[in-house]
Amino acid sequence: MTSQASTRPHDNPVTVIGLGPMGLALAGALLRNGHPTTVWNRTPGKARDIVARGARLAGSVADAVAAGPLTVVCLKDYATLYEVLDTAGGASAGRTLVNLNSGTPNEAHAAASWAAGRGVAYLDGAVMVPPPLVGDPGSVFLFSGPREVFDTHRAALTSLGDPRYLGSDPGLAVLHNAALLGLMYATMNGFLHATALVGSAGVRAAEFADLAVNRFLPTVVDATLVEQAPDLDAGHYPGELGTLHMNLNALEHITLTCEEQGVHTGQPRLMREIAAQAIEDGHGGSNYLAVFEVFRKAAPGAR
Amino acid sequence: MTSQASTRPHDNPVTVIGLGPMGLALAGALLRNGHPTTVWNRTPGKARDIVARGARLAGSVADAVAAGPLTVVCLKDYATLYEVLDTAGGASAGRTLVNLNSGTPNEAHAAASWAAGRGVAYLDGAVMVPPPLVGDPGSVFLFSGPREVFDTHRAALTSLGDPRYLGSDPGLAVLHNAALLGLMYATMNGFLHATALVGSAGVRAAEFADLAVNRFLPTVVDATLVEQAPDLDAGHYPGELGTLHMNLNALEHITLTCEEQGVHTGQPRLMREIAAQAIEDGHGGSNYLAVFEVFRKAAPGAR
Repeated sequence: MTSQASTRPHDNPVTVIGLGPMGLALAGALLRNGHPTTVWNRTPGKARDIVARGARLAGSVADAVAAGPLTVVCLKDYATLYEVLDTAGGASAGRTLVNLNSGTPNEAHAAASWAAGRGVAYLDGAVMVPPPLVGDPGSVFLFSGPREVFDTHRAALTSLGDPRYLGSDPGLAVLHNAALLGLMYATMNGFLHATALVGSAGVRAAEFADLAVNRFLPTVVDATLVEQAPDLDAGHYPGELGTLHMNLNALEHITLTCEEQGVHTGQPRLMREIAAQAIEDGHGGSNYLAVFEVFRKAAPGAR
Repeated sequence: MTSQASTRPHDNPVTVIGLGPMGLALAGALLRNGHPTTVWNRTPGKARDIVARGARLAGSVADAVAAGPLTVVCLKDYATLYEVLDTAGGASAGRTLVNLNSGTPNEAHAAASWAAGRGVAYLDGAVMVPPPLVGDPGSVFLFSGPREVFDTHRAALTSLGDPRYLGSDPGLAVLHNAALLGLMYATMNGFLHATALVGSAGVRAAEFADLAVNRFLPTVVDATLVEQAPDLDAGHYPGELGTLHMNLNALEHITLTCEEQGVHTGQPRLMREIAAQAIEDGHGGSNYLAVFEVFRKAAPGAR
């Protein structure tokens, strides 16, 4: 399994197990890139369109896995992975599974052990784009597990998007997935809450989005985060240009404004509490990034 | 006061009251753009450097305000605005004040009434960049109040950055300020929390920032928000590509991952509660944007 696979797609057959919207998008991207593509789904009817586009429908999981060296699995969760793949018996031994469902790092570690016990090379992965963007060269796919397994199948994985290898710890892909989705939901909630706040005075969302997302976020927020990330690694939060005391004052203004306008205050109140906790922990003269210390050193009660 | 001021900076004297870091940045930008600039601060020593660069230090607030048609005020809060400007007696009558402190819409409305009672033309405003970016042509400044007052002084305000007129309601600038700062803190907290989560497995912040902020946010999150903002105005949240039920499942995964890794769970738990509330309100088959309904229709208990 450590031999280099060909970079010519027609020499690289790939199997896709699980044909929900994401599995169908994966199979479609493989077909478009010239890979002989085998598919399997519990409900075979879901394969109709992708078979019409050139995929081969396997009659069993064993048949599907045996069709080539690489099987991409896109099922609901780890329990379903075990349930489905165990029907293949010994067919998966000596082959590679790339598993793309969501889960926790502990679940990914357990799946790597499960695969090792069956002689299966295993990569855990995460798709960071919605189905319509699968196959675009810039679409981020995350993988973790043995480096040589990733290297062997890099060409096929590149047909799905931009494959990022995160390290040999198999839990890294789902950990990054949880972190990036958390960032996504936090940013979306920040935007939706801000839009509700200006909406309380009749401002349209489409108008606010242009100011907030096209102008404010890239210039004021995103650039700062990238620039100051090394300070997080160093635990260095200089307060010359603004202190957590000032940020707490701003968060109190924001909370008060939400109360005045009759908009939900849960988010600003929580952010105020987190900033107050950082001050209580001795970071009052530091800049705002010091709330990082609250996040990473969760008190048992806060977990 | 509705006459068009000259667009030649040397014909447009401006006064700046309050010489904290932001006030000094404002005065510096005005000087660089050729405006005769008068300054006043309670502690005159803070004016030394800006006077060395060409500003004139007024001996009193009345003297400062009388130096020209336009005074920009950058003090701590509205209470300080009243306290300081009331020492000018009748000197501000017939002139324009542009007030840039933070506060709530109700406070801005009260300030507009206070100004009207003294015959002062009043704009409320907010600076959306840190002091070092003041004077850059792309730096967003928000203003609200009478349109003709904004138009009269647009040239001088353009010397500070990119002035956006939001409407005649004087509360709109501080409302947008609270909304944008709330978005900023939410995005920063999202990033810092995500960085703490991957940091629990030894991933460096600088490495994660590149993936999260340079790649993931712009392609997956920001573009979607701008594209879907009109749906918020229409209250239209089609769930074909993903439902709130699926998002709640993801938020449960994220919370569980934080627990496993020993990272603070306050944010994912709150986001999970908000999503669960939206489902309880009947939006389970809608897409994630339906949490907007929870934010804007805050139940009295949630305020």
